[in-house]
Amino acid sequence: MLVKEKVKQAKDLLKEFNIDCWITFVRESQINGDPTLAYLVTADVTWHSAFIITRKGDTCAIVGKYDQKTVEDSGAYDDVFSFVEGIKSPLLDYLKKIKPEQIAINYSEDSEICDGLTHGMYLTLYRFLKEIGYENRLISAERIISALRERKSDTEIKYMKEAIESTLQIFDEVIPAIKVGKTEKEIAAFMKSKVREKGLELAWEETVCPAVFTGPATAAAHYMPTDRKIEAGHVLNMDFGVKSHDYCSDLQRTFYIAEQKGAGVPEEVQKGFRVIREAVEKSRQGMKPGREGHEIDKIARDILVSHGYEEFPHALGHQVGRYSHDGTALLGPAWEKYARKPFQKLEKGMVFTIEPRLTVAERGVVTIEEMVVVTENGAEYLSKPQEKLIIIQP
Amino acid sequence: MLVKEKVKQAKDLLKEFNIDCWITFVRESQINGDPTLAYLVTADVTWHSAFIITRKGDTCAIVGKYDQKTVEDSGAYDDVFSFVEGIKSPLLDYLKKIKPEQIAINYSEDSEICDGLTHGMYLTLYRFLKEIGYENRLISAERIISALRERKSDTEIKYMKEAIESTLQIFDEVIPAIKVGKTEKEIAAFMKSKVREKGLELAWEETVCPAVFTGPATAAAHYMPTDRKIEAGHVLNMDFGVKSHDYCSDLQRTFYIAEQKGAGVPEEVQKGFRVIREAVEKSRQGMKPGREGHEIDKIARDILVSHGYEEFPHALGHQVGRYSHDGTALLGPAWEKYARKPFQKLEKGMVFTIEPRLTVAERGVVTIEEMVVVTENGAEYLSKPQEKLIIIQP
Repeated sequence: MLVKEKVKQAKDLLKEFNIDCWITFVRESQINGDPTLAYLVTADVTWHSAFIITRKGDTCAIVGKYDQKTVEDSGAYDDVFSFVEGIKSPLLDYLKKIKPEQIAINYSEDSEICDGLTHGMYLTLYRFLKEIGYENRLISAERIISALRERKSDTEIKYMKEAIESTLQIFDEVIPAIKVGKTEKEIAAFMKSKVREKGLELAWEETVCPAVFTGPATAAAHYMPTDRKIEAGHVLNMDFGVKSHDYCSDLQRTFYIAEQKGAGVPEEVQKGFRVIREAVEKSRQGMKPGREGHEIDKIARDILVSHGYEEFPHALGHQVGRYSHDGTALLGPAWEKYARKPFQKLEKGMVFTIEPRLTVAERGVVTIEEMVVVTENGAEYLSKPQEKLIIIQP
Repeated sequence: MLVKEKVKQAKDLLKEFNIDCWITFVRESQINGDPTLAYLVTADVTWHSAFIITRKGDTCAIVGKYDQKTVEDSGAYDDVFSFVEGIKSPLLDYLKKIKPEQIAINYSEDSEICDGLTHGMYLTLYRFLKEIGYENRLISAERIISALRERKSDTEIKYMKEAIESTLQIFDEVIPAIKVGKTEKEIAAFMKSKVREKGLELAWEETVCPAVFTGPATAAAHYMPTDRKIEAGHVLNMDFGVKSHDYCSDLQRTFYIAEQKGAGVPEEVQKGFRVIREAVEKSRQGMKPGREGHEIDKIARDILVSHGYEEFPHALGHQVGRYSHDGTALLGPAWEKYARKPFQKLEKGMVFTIEPRLTVAERGVVTIEEMVVVTENGAEYLSKPQEKLIIIQP
């Protein structure tokens, strides 16, 4: 169903970008799975396989004999050809018939999500095309793949909202389990037990989903929960997400462990939370189609710096989709490792996290991560935002 | 633990193959995961990351700031460097220091398991190396990776035996569930329920694990279980595997549904089974270090043809490891799609399936899949072989 929708969307994108032909070229996709494949077929494929879409609207899959029936069943392709000994002949025959001026393939230096073609498979395809003089027609499919992943359909947004709802529910359910003396590992295990209870899947690698950080001496983000114990006066934060129909949520919430019953929150913690909340909200207000990610990143970064905090050592936000880190456009600064991602324009249907972070000395890390969708004229929260510190009474 | 073992093995392989330096170069490994990464680090990495091993025995990882601690904890690397803005400087600094004549990287036209480097990442690395005049030192790491994956350690063999034992147990447990009128889907669901009960993971994609085929009118291999009902006089076969510590089993068993209580097995079914069993056993007897896969494939293929059956339209056997289809060397014919795999020499420690197949008209497909390990002078079964048809009494 989603495959049919996405193959149709791809045909429209080829027209929009004026590209004759797009080939997704894969083999043993269980091993070196091109992340684009999930939009094109419902199962893994074994031998060299080509999924071809043309600007004229033709769709063709060429697969090993044993994968033919599964691909036919998807109903997404006009033609499904199969082979036993090798893909070269049927592939070149088809290309000679459609005579494309450009052949877009799945590689990109800038965007890992558009970089599913392996170098070995590139060499094979190049060698094949050389036989018919087409080898110089290869171009990057980055624009096609980015738009396909990023412009979410209503169905995709619906799945993501379901994932967010389950995530927020588990963030609520963990509150009574957060107690002085409990370890990060115990909190993570509790969250995971709720995930299993609800029959959900984690949105990313289980060693760091959830990530749990308590107090001032925590490791950096991405590190797995430790035996460090929750203490009164600590700030605790968690980074957590689940999947619904293979679509992810990715949210962070911050908790404060009160020193004693009814005691207030220290001003430096309260201030840290206010600044983070302001950075999230102002960033969201700054988003709309046509703006570039680095402009939005700067809004949050400037707010933190103007209040005397250090800059966070990562991007303000990333897209979410079938992966917790998805898509090309990024709300990030112009750093080498982010390549051109921060300079992509925001488009309607993109789903981003907003996740600034700051450290409060001797207390811990304050951070919120919300999810927003870019709309016609702005951006809307998909997650009900955290507007208050969650205070854990002893 | 396994990571430390494997990094050590890799150092020895660089010496054996006389290669100065090997770089595994990845980013967002959750998305475009190089299948080699699991041997080099215990968790996914986010930003551009390089895992470098040298012939002199130096080991170095260069990773994004947030992945540093996880990689350090593995204890497998002498140096773990981290960066915030980009990998280029620390990477080039390290290479200028070690001055390698050859830099092996993870690409291969012939072996998907050695082809984890994406084309975009290749272009990035090439561009970096050009700045220091090293761009022509790049070579394929196929030999290193193949040997690393294929020469199984005792620990790896132990894990695979555990997976095999669970698989055979479930093949026993399903026997009472196989009944005339049950559908392929129901049999598959029963097998899956046993997998869940035992807390195991499937060895491959769940839509076709197990694959269940009953009767003469089945789809080809790899196709998912259908609503087709089991009938008396049918041959039924299943392809199934599980994982233990991320290491797979992959086995097939054949069942015959008796026409009536105590009725014998038709001679054409009995003969088909005998021929398959002979093909498996003779193939195993033919295996030893130094022989090439196509020679072994031919043993089984010739036996089938000499008894009047068609050749099976696939390789006789593949390696098994962290994937159900693993490794480079293949017991396969010299077909285009298999590239040079059938011409690799067998080595001690390789684990292969042997899985010939034939069709008995109006009855169904007869096939056995066993797993064997190549030893000093031959090959030994890891799975207790199927020596008799499993007869289901009505």
